Amino acid sequence: MTLDVLLSALGPQAVQAGCDANRSYLTDWTSRKPVVPLAVVRPGSTEEVSKALAICNEHGVPVVPQGGRTGLVGGAQPIENGVVISMDRMTAVEEISLGARTARVQSGVTLNQLQDAAHEHGLFFPVDISSRSSCQIGGMISTNAGGVRVFRDGMMRNNVLGLEVVLPDGRILSAMNGFLKNNTGYDLKQMFIGAEGTLGIVTGAVLRLRPVMPVKVTALLRVEELTRALQVLEVLEARLSGLAVCEIMWPGYYNFASGFRGFDPLPGSDGPTLLIEVEGAEETTVRAQVQRTIEVLFERELVLDGTISQSGRQTEEFWMLRDSSQMLYQAFGSVVTVDVSLYPDGIDDMVDTLNSRLTAMSPRLRCLWFGHLGDMNLHISVVDATGAAMAPELYHQIEECIFSAVIAHGGSISAEHGMGAYKAHQMPRIRSTEEQALSRALRDSFDPKGIMNPGRLF
Amino acid sequence: MTLDVLLSALGPQAVQAGCDANRSYLTDWTSRKPVVPLAVVRPGSTEEVSKALAICNEHGVPVVPQGGRTGLVGGAQPIENGVVISMDRMTAVEEISLGARTARVQSGVTLNQLQDAAHEHGLFFPVDISSRSSCQIGGMISTNAGGVRVFRDGMMRNNVLGLEVVLPDGRILSAMNGFLKNNTGYDLKQMFIGAEGTLGIVTGAVLRLRPVMPVKVTALLRVEELTRALQVLEVLEARLSGLAVCEIMWPGYYNFASGFRGFDPLPGSDGPTLLIEVEGAEETTVRAQVQRTIEVLFERELVLDGTISQSGRQTEEFWMLRDSSQMLYQAFGSVVTVDVSLYPDGIDDMVDTLNSRLTAMSPRLRCLWFGHLGDMNLHISVVDATGAAMAPELYHQIEECIFSAVIAHGGSISAEHGMGAYKAHQMPRIRSTEEQALSRALRDSFDPKGIMNPGRLF
Repeated sequence: MTLDVLLSALGPQAVQAGCDANRSYLTDWTSRKPVVPLAVVRPGSTEEVSKALAICNEHGVPVVPQGGRTGLVGGAQPIENGVVISMDRMTAVEEISLGARTARVQSGVTLNQLQDAAHEHGLFFPVDISSRSSCQIGGMISTNAGGVRVFRDGMMRNNVLGLEVVLPDGRILSAMNGFLKNNTGYDLKQMFIGAEGTLGIVTGAVLRLRPVMPVKVTALLRVEELTRALQVLEVLEARLSGLAVCEIMWPGYYNFASGFRGFDPLPGSDGPTLLIEVEGAEETTVRAQVQRTIEVLFERELVLDGTISQSGRQTEEFWMLRDSSQMLYQAFGSVVTVDVSLYPDGIDDMVDTLNSRLTAMSPRLRCLWFGHLGDMNLHISVVDATGAAMAPELYHQIEECIFSAVIAHGGSISAEHGMGAYKAHQMPRIRSTEEQALSRALRDSFDPKGIMNPGRLF
Repeated sequence: MTLDVLLSALGPQAVQAGCDANRSYLTDWTSRKPVVPLAVVRPGSTEEVSKALAICNEHGVPVVPQGGRTGLVGGAQPIENGVVISMDRMTAVEEISLGARTARVQSGVTLNQLQDAAHEHGLFFPVDISSRSSCQIGGMISTNAGGVRVFRDGMMRNNVLGLEVVLPDGRILSAMNGFLKNNTGYDLKQMFIGAEGTLGIVTGAVLRLRPVMPVKVTALLRVEELTRALQVLEVLEARLSGLAVCEIMWPGYYNFASGFRGFDPLPGSDGPTLLIEVEGAEETTVRAQVQRTIEVLFERELVLDGTISQSGRQTEEFWMLRDSSQMLYQAFGSVVTVDVSLYPDGIDDMVDTLNSRLTAMSPRLRCLWFGHLGDMNLHISVVDATGAAMAPELYHQIEECIFSAVIAHGGSISAEHGMGAYKAHQMPRIRSTEEQALSRALRDSFDPKGIMNPGRLF
């Protein structure tokens, strides 16, 4: 019946029965079992989103908003007897303002599409994640996406200036501010950023762009251990004001990536590898600065080895090593992926603790560490070295082992991936009673019927 | 009676009758008529703030939170029969973490006190405003303070990682996160940042610190007009990755400041003056980069004149010119000060429109423009050239003239100062019906009895 109402309000180009919809809407990147929803709605405008939500709200039907479905915590997986609202028809880059350095977009625009439009004006959007070809701006906003440049340019929250949202009852909230500074009352958009689609559906945004720096110099550095890596970061930050990226790969991950890709730019030493990128105006100046800084690092005995990329091809290779996490799925079938923030003081201890606990669980398990040194967001991937599929119980046992170690060390069990469906039940362990009560009160006041992405976030 | 209850709960070291309190609590920097409140409460701990708020809430007595009282919109002015809660006894810098680069502070810590503590560890807090010796972190958070480095390092919102807040009913909400990335549910602290004390009282915070760059090179540049200034900014950003400050002063303001201070580092040409600061590691390198960039600006005929500071003393002088806005009060008695954000395309037109409208109002009026070119936040000060005090009607007429021009140009009537008491009535002009309804609903749900800073914000 809800399907009929949706159909007659929005027409067949926007509404399909779940059983008739393309299978891509039935699952996400985590590829768990497909779920057939009641309907898949693909609105063509904010007004159509508003109509669809008003209908679902009236009928008390659950709604799952979908962007590019590249999330890793199941936040966009359909719900049986629920309605999927996909934003993939709202793909207009409405304006790039060169003067204000902003982009006004519909929320179904992909990150790559935004970057292409910005590059034409010598600008770029500083949040970059590896799902860039599929992930949509609306999903990135709803999950407060992060990536490799956060220590420099911030997460989505820091780069969204204005927002248009449809509330659960269909009301349209337009706050399309384009200023960096605008202290005129509550900054309502903040509520929806990172809310994982539980308070409304993002339909449009004004994003902050930055000028493209003409030169990028990329280098790999090998250090003995994490403590050294942190000292290296300190030197880099003090000497290189154009430092834009500082990633870290522990040997397990580096060796996997290097073996899988078939090249190794830093052979012959052991320890974590840093990938750094420094931006600037003139090739010779930036190169000289990076060169000189690496010399200083050698003089102070902070690095074991290092190499500066000499070509575009080599830079690509450095990045392919770092961007090999998806290859783990190809190589090992099942992978436990955890995304955490840790205070630097505790990390060495954590690595040791976890490695020994996991080995005790099964000697076939390998724990691969990599992540963003600049903001202490680490990704931990656990695989079975033989490539055997992990049983669900083992999978959950590993996850629990990591979560409890992270919580014991005062860390965060979700740095950038979010809580979604898979971690929603963890909330009581990590947030205080008062935080949970206030969160619940907010959610209830925005969505009294509880239709928005139920079971997700908390 | 509320006074007696507060006294018996918190004791005489924390509670005074308004008529017995130091006069400094009765007014703020805007120096309007002092107001004697029912009581001034100066809690020594979060628990005491909680007790005080619970009592006021029970009795339905209005509460005005006070930080350093350096606001310019009357947000901290006492209310008759209300209770002032001043944070000036909660001044502990509890921890500076070198590893995590964070400071955990009580909210009564002043900006200077925080900077001193951070500097001892080679770190600094990147939000800098001219009231730094008196303004408190809690007030800066509640007003989402901005300042000169926003285009690089963001406003308070971008530099607050964790927050402790006492809600109007006395509940303590502790969300003292210390990570740059922590996507675990609603980011509740965002609600309180910039809420101007209407949703609770900030009692503590975890702040992000950054490494101090050892070298700063400061320069003044003279341009013919704003369009040129924007082109200069583009060149600066593309060539100088250490660009940390880019301020602008129109001739009226520059000439006043230069005359008042008694020095003029860039005589003999007319047009806006830019103050820039570039940070880096090595004096010679940074100086050469700035020198070379200024040469490029001359080659492209973008600047009329320019000078790089040659000494600490000269740098101080450059900054004294920029920081002369308080001197307007000394020189002219009454000053209309407006703080706006504008899109670059509209500014030239705005300057002309406003100058002619104000001259039409009275030929004695002078309109002085200065502000932050990097983020398009401009401050407009209007004075009577004869130094005569302005009648309140003229004052409001001028303010209205500026506000209506700003709104007509799509600008914001409060970039960083906030709405406070003086601009609260402007809300219906600048925010949509839906935004206002949602804001009201949020405020009512946090503060059902309406005790928190009533009449402020909206």
